[in-house]
Amino acid sequence: MCEANVYIDNYDGKGEILYLENVDVIRPEDGKLFIKNLFGEQKFFDGQIKEISLIKHKIILTKRQTT
Amino acid sequence: MCEANVYIDNYDGKGEILYLENVDVIRPEDGKLFIKNLFGEQKFFDGQIKEISLIKHKIILTKRQTT
Repeated sequence: MCEANVYIDNYDGKGEILYLENVDVIRPEDGKLFIKNLFGEQKFFDGQIKEISLIKHKIILTKRQTT
Repeated sequence: MCEANVYIDNYDGKGEILYLENVDVIRPEDGKLFIKNLFGEQKFFDGQIKEISLIKHKIILTKRQTT
């Protein structure tokens, strides 16, 4: 299968944190990222995509900057 | 392999247009999207990700709005 795992970058200085596995769909929605996996789990993430690497099955997100 | 094909949505009213096949990496860079495929082809797209569907091997982009 060609799903990917989604990580959050540099979360509280702990490096990459696994956010959701086996993700199929990501779509910007209402200023957030709607994320859905193969098992129907759905999450909304307040941030952006930092990098997609499909061969590594890896998508990295960053939290919205609150500056 | 788990690459995806990248399309541009609603380009000149023609529906989805294929932009780059066999894409591995997408990354925001300098306000654009850096896109690279398995064969080393690289493009910069002035727009955003509209939807990722990995099971369909499909990533849809939209051009930057110039309003």
